[in-house]
Amino acid sequence: MKLVKGFPATSQDDYPLNVHNILKHADRTFGRQQIVSKRHDGTFHRYTYHDAFGRVQQLANALKRLGVEVGDRVGVLAWNTYENYEIYFGVPGTGAVMLLLNLRLTPPDLAWIINHAEAKFLICDETLLPFAQAVAPQCPSLKGFIVITQKNIKDVQTTVSPLYKYDDLLAAEKPEFDFPLMEETSAYAACYTTGTTGRPKGVYYSHRDVYLHSFCIACNAQISVTDTFLQLVPMFHALGWGLPQAATLVGGKIVFPGMYNLDRLGELADIMVQEGVNVSAGAPAIFLPMLEHIRKMEKKPDLKGARFLSGATEPPISMMKGYWDLTGAEIIHAYGATETTPLVTVNRLKPWLMDELPEDKRWDLKRKQGYCVVGLDIRVVGPDEKEVPHDGKTPGEIQVRGPWITGSYYNAPGSEVQFTEDGYWRSGDVGTMDAEGYLKITDRVKDVIKSGGEWISSVDMENEILSHPAALEAAVAGIIHPKWQERPLALVVLRPEYKGKTTAQDIKDHLAKTFAKWQLPDEVLFVDAIPKTSVGKIDKKVIRADYKDQYSK
Amino acid sequence: MKLVKGFPATSQDDYPLNVHNILKHADRTFGRQQIVSKRHDGTFHRYTYHDAFGRVQQLANALKRLGVEVGDRVGVLAWNTYENYEIYFGVPGTGAVMLLLNLRLTPPDLAWIINHAEAKFLICDETLLPFAQAVAPQCPSLKGFIVITQKNIKDVQTTVSPLYKYDDLLAAEKPEFDFPLMEETSAYAACYTTGTTGRPKGVYYSHRDVYLHSFCIACNAQISVTDTFLQLVPMFHALGWGLPQAATLVGGKIVFPGMYNLDRLGELADIMVQEGVNVSAGAPAIFLPMLEHIRKMEKKPDLKGARFLSGATEPPISMMKGYWDLTGAEIIHAYGATETTPLVTVNRLKPWLMDELPEDKRWDLKRKQGYCVVGLDIRVVGPDEKEVPHDGKTPGEIQVRGPWITGSYYNAPGSEVQFTEDGYWRSGDVGTMDAEGYLKITDRVKDVIKSGGEWISSVDMENEILSHPAALEAAVAGIIHPKWQERPLALVVLRPEYKGKTTAQDIKDHLAKTFAKWQLPDEVLFVDAIPKTSVGKIDKKVIRADYKDQYSK
Repeated sequence: MKLVKGFPATSQDDYPLNVHNILKHADRTFGRQQIVSKRHDGTFHRYTYHDAFGRVQQLANALKRLGVEVGDRVGVLAWNTYENYEIYFGVPGTGAVMLLLNLRLTPPDLAWIINHAEAKFLICDETLLPFAQAVAPQCPSLKGFIVITQKNIKDVQTTVSPLYKYDDLLAAEKPEFDFPLMEETSAYAACYTTGTTGRPKGVYYSHRDVYLHSFCIACNAQISVTDTFLQLVPMFHALGWGLPQAATLVGGKIVFPGMYNLDRLGELADIMVQEGVNVSAGAPAIFLPMLEHIRKMEKKPDLKGARFLSGATEPPISMMKGYWDLTGAEIIHAYGATETTPLVTVNRLKPWLMDELPEDKRWDLKRKQGYCVVGLDIRVVGPDEKEVPHDGKTPGEIQVRGPWITGSYYNAPGSEVQFTEDGYWRSGDVGTMDAEGYLKITDRVKDVIKSGGEWISSVDMENEILSHPAALEAAVAGIIHPKWQERPLALVVLRPEYKGKTTAQDIKDHLAKTFAKWQLPDEVLFVDAIPKTSVGKIDKKVIRADYKDQYSK
Repeated sequence: MKLVKGFPATSQDDYPLNVHNILKHADRTFGRQQIVSKRHDGTFHRYTYHDAFGRVQQLANALKRLGVEVGDRVGVLAWNTYENYEIYFGVPGTGAVMLLLNLRLTPPDLAWIINHAEAKFLICDETLLPFAQAVAPQCPSLKGFIVITQKNIKDVQTTVSPLYKYDDLLAAEKPEFDFPLMEETSAYAACYTTGTTGRPKGVYYSHRDVYLHSFCIACNAQISVTDTFLQLVPMFHALGWGLPQAATLVGGKIVFPGMYNLDRLGELADIMVQEGVNVSAGAPAIFLPMLEHIRKMEKKPDLKGARFLSGATEPPISMMKGYWDLTGAEIIHAYGATETTPLVTVNRLKPWLMDELPEDKRWDLKRKQGYCVVGLDIRVVGPDEKEVPHDGKTPGEIQVRGPWITGSYYNAPGSEVQFTEDGYWRSGDVGTMDAEGYLKITDRVKDVIKSGGEWISSVDMENEILSHPAALEAAVAGIIHPKWQERPLALVVLRPEYKGKTTAQDIKDHLAKTFAKWQLPDEVLFVDAIPKTSVGKIDKKVIRADYKDQYSK
């Protein structure tokens, strides 16, 4: 990016944006506000921002005493609890980097990340000590382990050492810490992305990045001290999607659900009602079972005015309607990634669209990923590397640029290809943008079919095939073609009763109703099963390999 | 400020905060949102953000064609109209600095400022051409004049030249401009403060400063695209108090009242009702006559949820209650200065205070200046240069530091004394802070009485004297004292019926009910008149001079 230097200003432009200043402000201004946290034993821990700020300072003192220095990395394996909240401010408050570790990873991946980041300490919930034990022998950079537990340290069974109890460390320190003013380009925290291919890649978020992102969340959700936040998103996922910092920015009440069990997500709905939650962020995988739980409640909670940001996958209309009809809460679809801190788009209905669109079109629109938030540049780039028209139809790759987008991956040679020359991050997502700026993700770049300089969405075509009564399962992939680069191939599993009755031409005729002729698959093959990955997704890599000669024989 | 460098981040920290990006975002996302502006002839001009953005780009092209270069200063003498809004983005969008000129200044002061800033062009409303004519001969840096007018350029009567018509310049250009990405520390605009003493002093706001301040306003007023903003504050006062940019940040509807007449402020209330305004910022001097107008309306407007920021002076409870009872609108006291972009404190009632305080205490609290907004450091410093306790009683000077506080005055030798070594701006205001962080301004540093290392508020004492039935007017000033540095002297104008009946001791006895003995004035003198400045304020400089030997004779 080429910057132009203007006339000098007199503003205090050297005053840095530091994330710990957000909590400092919450303490001085909203010191009596509550933070609630569910313990492993089911009871609730309650204290205030003022209490939290005292403990954050004790933590910072303790880390310094253990030898944590400015710039060091400190690993964290923890649930959504008040201790993790303290870590969010205490670790970076010393000038160190908080390395958030994904609890769903395997020990080899965790060890690889810890070694890549050269973490000096690991803070670990007692329930997660098996991970620490598994990685410790492979991670020579780790100089000590801090365990979050209610037990006495001598009763904690583990092989890792030296071992310190989190609360003991804090108890030995005074609740005053002289926070350094950090250069705002210093790293505040790191998260590693774990794509389906290659090694995890490190995103190191600067203080500036996270501070600005907090303002952005606050702006886009109109949050304030009168709101109560439920931290549903795991705090190791892209900084908990920025909610802990944004809630603190405005001084809202925060509720941490602790170690929640995927089989008992309904309990989260109970916490939501009991604590008066009206702002949260999560995925349909969490919101759906919570809704089912609410359906069973005799008295439906009044959540009028509540805003629940929903990411990861497209929210089903039935889920959005369910919350709206039963509770008055609004589900707001949003889009982002680890690389984007994560907020990129948010789906709010503009007042004029509220006026113009009939109800069904409004729900339909709410399924889109939304419009780009202020502060970021976004563009949708077609196969010819040019921006596609904003017609809601033409697909292209989503590319993003701005203060809270990563500009590189830490120490990852070869990853430069994920960035354009003019500084955009290539998301790898394919989508369309409409005239009002609403983005709709339709595919992944690696799965989209590149045919004669145009793109065909494999996901759209799969959905259309599935709307044929004979189709039980379908997969569409781009197969190498000598003339067109790639051409679509459709694999279809027929319902038993249609076997031998439905022809490939039937499927093509069905597709021809919505797809242009050049987009239709050259071949439709009926198969007994579609190749899947270990987590049940269609494995297009395998399809492309199995059928690689299909069009070039 | 000493900054510590941490571990390097991967974020795009070089992506600059540029104010024109805010409008760019409003165009792409809220392009159909309305901007309404009252013309001099009483009719209304209506267009959209998209239209405005096109004209902003035409303006930027026109300025470049005229020879305005990156870093140049362009003076502006204009009312609150859509053209001024275009100037707010178009002038800095070219990389130049928008120099906002206060319409209330005398031509010599205006000329001094234009010369100090070395402005290259002057954009001027036709009604303000007399100012331009008066300053032009004294301002050799001015290379041309751009007049905002509905007339044909040949019908405009003026001696200044070369003269260009604003609309003609725009009409000749295309509505696309390649905005430079400016280093965020480049100046976006300049305002000059005009204190009672000395020359005007220039505050040059950086792009970064204004961008962050916009986020701050949006956060503190929870504004969104569903809000309608009335730009009451003159746009030459501290960037219109940041509302034009903040409204654009969230894509709200904006209403510009044009050239409004101080004798017909009631009309503003009509605009407010007609356009559905629910967010504004102004001073009691404007809000009070508007309230009187609303009182006379047969059908009171429903302004439930509306937020009107009120600055400059303490809002009378009767005014705040009036709006609340008649319309449901909340008056929110806020505090700032030209040097602070301007938001420093905002008075919102925290939820727990809403619960705990009885109604009269709540109204009382709303008179305070409020708590410091996130992002800034604030402290109240006593005569011993130490922070005073947050007890709501002990006075000290308000000092502020942060990204949207000026760190110096442009090219103003000697003004360094207004900044502390650790980077705080000395506001010159004296106040107290309570345990909840609410600030209350009680005096000016130059007027507070410095007695034996302690401070006595002259304003508090004047108010207390006026609560005595005999007192018609009162002034309290610090007079040089050989032992105590200063001691209070009270001048009192008695009501006619009390003359000869009330004694100095009576006044002292009255004061002794609320002031400590050491704080009482050594002398209370009855006078026929209190020295006043040209704008009707008590002239304490004259009092201190007239009575300078009173305590050292």
